[in-house]
Amino acid sequence: MLKTNAFDAATSGNIPAESVAMIERRRRLLGPAYQLFYKNPVHLVRGEGVWVYDAEGRRYLDVYNNVPSVGHCHPHVLEALVRQASTLNTHTRYLHENVLNFAEKLLSTMPAELSQVMFTCTGSEANDLALRIAEDFTGGTGVIVTEFSYHGMTKAIAGLSASMGPYVKVNGDARVIPAPIHHPADPAQVGKKFANDIRAALADMRRHGIKPAALMIDTFFTSDGGFFDPAGFLQEAIDVVHDAGALYIADEVQPGYGRSGEHWWGFQRHGVLPDIVSLGKPMGNGHPMAGITIQPHILERFGNESSYFNTFGGNTVSSAVGLAVLEVIEQENLIPSVGRAGKAILEGISALAERFPAIGSVRGAGLFVSVDFMTADGAPDSITALAVVNALREEGVLIGASGPHANILKIRPPLVFTAEHSQILVSALENVLSKMF
Amino acid sequence: MLKTNAFDAATSGNIPAESVAMIERRRRLLGPAYQLFYKNPVHLVRGEGVWVYDAEGRRYLDVYNNVPSVGHCHPHVLEALVRQASTLNTHTRYLHENVLNFAEKLLSTMPAELSQVMFTCTGSEANDLALRIAEDFTGGTGVIVTEFSYHGMTKAIAGLSASMGPYVKVNGDARVIPAPIHHPADPAQVGKKFANDIRAALADMRRHGIKPAALMIDTFFTSDGGFFDPAGFLQEAIDVVHDAGALYIADEVQPGYGRSGEHWWGFQRHGVLPDIVSLGKPMGNGHPMAGITIQPHILERFGNESSYFNTFGGNTVSSAVGLAVLEVIEQENLIPSVGRAGKAILEGISALAERFPAIGSVRGAGLFVSVDFMTADGAPDSITALAVVNALREEGVLIGASGPHANILKIRPPLVFTAEHSQILVSALENVLSKMF
Repeated sequence: MLKTNAFDAATSGNIPAESVAMIERRRRLLGPAYQLFYKNPVHLVRGEGVWVYDAEGRRYLDVYNNVPSVGHCHPHVLEALVRQASTLNTHTRYLHENVLNFAEKLLSTMPAELSQVMFTCTGSEANDLALRIAEDFTGGTGVIVTEFSYHGMTKAIAGLSASMGPYVKVNGDARVIPAPIHHPADPAQVGKKFANDIRAALADMRRHGIKPAALMIDTFFTSDGGFFDPAGFLQEAIDVVHDAGALYIADEVQPGYGRSGEHWWGFQRHGVLPDIVSLGKPMGNGHPMAGITIQPHILERFGNESSYFNTFGGNTVSSAVGLAVLEVIEQENLIPSVGRAGKAILEGISALAERFPAIGSVRGAGLFVSVDFMTADGAPDSITALAVVNALREEGVLIGASGPHANILKIRPPLVFTAEHSQILVSALENVLSKMF
Repeated sequence: MLKTNAFDAATSGNIPAESVAMIERRRRLLGPAYQLFYKNPVHLVRGEGVWVYDAEGRRYLDVYNNVPSVGHCHPHVLEALVRQASTLNTHTRYLHENVLNFAEKLLSTMPAELSQVMFTCTGSEANDLALRIAEDFTGGTGVIVTEFSYHGMTKAIAGLSASMGPYVKVNGDARVIPAPIHHPADPAQVGKKFANDIRAALADMRRHGIKPAALMIDTFFTSDGGFFDPAGFLQEAIDVVHDAGALYIADEVQPGYGRSGEHWWGFQRHGVLPDIVSLGKPMGNGHPMAGITIQPHILERFGNESSYFNTFGGNTVSSAVGLAVLEVIEQENLIPSVGRAGKAILEGISALAERFPAIGSVRGAGLFVSVDFMTADGAPDSITALAVVNALREEGVLIGASGPHANILKIRPPLVFTAEHSQILVSALENVLSKMF
């Protein structure tokens, strides 16, 4: 998964000498794990709102980055960062209002049952902590994840990230089930099948003497390719998990923070209540911060016995930044605006799908939209998808591909993306497809 | 370990009403895992250099915090943060000079063999990544750690942090050995015994069919209580580890970044060469960043096959901040200054030890100094140590205690602490001890 759209010297485009030198320097200093995007990697130097600029001053519409959630270099977030970083930056073992004000504001966006929060620095750490708590609470070790899941990079969580490829082993007590594939012809079967797949996984755990601990899923199945419909389809699955004594961990690192354009949190689309919610990327608009929210009875024993501490998590600066991001989402009324921009993308690309048969399904929730590319005989078409990704880069639009076959355009821009930006995206895609077909 | 010096409502001092309200709010919002320092917790609002200020404007000498390594709110670091955060904050999959300039500068402080670096956000993530690479390179799963080790909070690394107490299980394939206890009467035996303990652990792994992967140690055995002498004592241990086909992971989260006052890195005190070095706390002067440096042949396969990526690690802002911290250490010539300040602490407290028999051993390397408190019959005296910690807080000095018996004063201030600040610390300690004895 993670090598989708990776630069490869063997198949690279016509790259400027300056980029060649930087790529060589990266390889030497950072080693082989560091990947670059695009056949012709982008050298960015500046960002503002939904726009980023390269070293030649060329402007790109950012349709890829969900981390700068309220827009690159948002002045309100910047002001909070500067103010607090120039005053005091300390951990949570001294009293300070910032972590409390941020915690209170964040929790106010959640269902009342999720009334406590703990802070980490990365979504990987958030999921790792959620896993530790779930194992502690249930006494189980079995975790159910989807086929092309991605939940992070710690040793324990890499073992629950089935998208990492054959080299990274899935945890032996974990069970991998199919993602709830989009099925517009028979929407009722999506949730039914997903729940049945969970029943089968639980039965298989029982056969192997594994006690179940949790279902850990990205609410929008982001790395699996993006599956959103029908709203509410998760309910039966969650009931099955709870009946088995296991917890439901909602990985909201990508679906959360208003991305659905309907609610603050992706799980609200399905009317379900998680036991633990993990948070990450958009929380700090780029500042490294993440965390979990949790129902207190689940945290009680672990919190008392295990004395978790995260040096940087919830520090005075991170808390100021996190609060500022929530304020922007509220003050700029971003959630309905996300809904409008997302609808414009869906409508625009659905219209293109009628003209370009290479486009299969188009689906989304707010500013997370997935566009499948398919061959004439109905197979996933990663060649076209990656050609589109690279052609859009040349057109001035940064975008990525995802899914187990790397054939799915992944559209998840900053939340300040408006319907006007959606039009720019749709036009660029139309240009690219017109040249290709 | 982590509850050493924790606030406890049952034994608390006379706490201002404002603090009581904040403590209640913390418990409600953050749950039971969050600990506060001191019987009377400190409410800090501002920091500058080695000084922090509480809400009443009272000033405290910061002898505890190694995270604000070049001093609270250092202007050069702040300027780098503001400049880059207001320009562009993106991940490492686009080309950008910052991560390369930072990587190059950081690696220039390391032995030539450690020529590649990967960036994470926390020391926990750094040790977790080091572990994954060591297991991959060796094919082993056995890790040797010390009795009261602390390496971080991910599930895998909490299982290698023996100081976490009985509730957090040590990984079944890990082996726990005694720390290399200070032995001024027979310094030669320190390294010999430590190497023999490793030989025994390796033999026990063989008996259990566990293939060894690594020795993971904090170079200064920080959480074990601080053991530094004699310089060079680690060499035999590392040879034993390498002879067994395992790697030496140097946890330099606390000993690194010039803290020894002699070298950039703690392991240089012992003349040994790690296979992987993990870095954390001081890297960003409070900005959440960490990483590993590594010998390229060890990273090669893992890096190519496992496609590690850390969303925030090495981003444009973190890299700018990290570079600025290294520049300050160099431009302000902090390493020799750390050596002078540390020597003044050692000498001052050694003189106090002659007057106050409660002080047992005083030992250190640069600005990491350990002071054991012992009872009259030679047992570890945590009651006195914690009384001193709380009394120093009232005297305007922030400090902590550590070690398996919580009887060891832990002195590890910001690196801009000078010999003049050392005198303030020594005088405050003299005052406190004079009142107590």
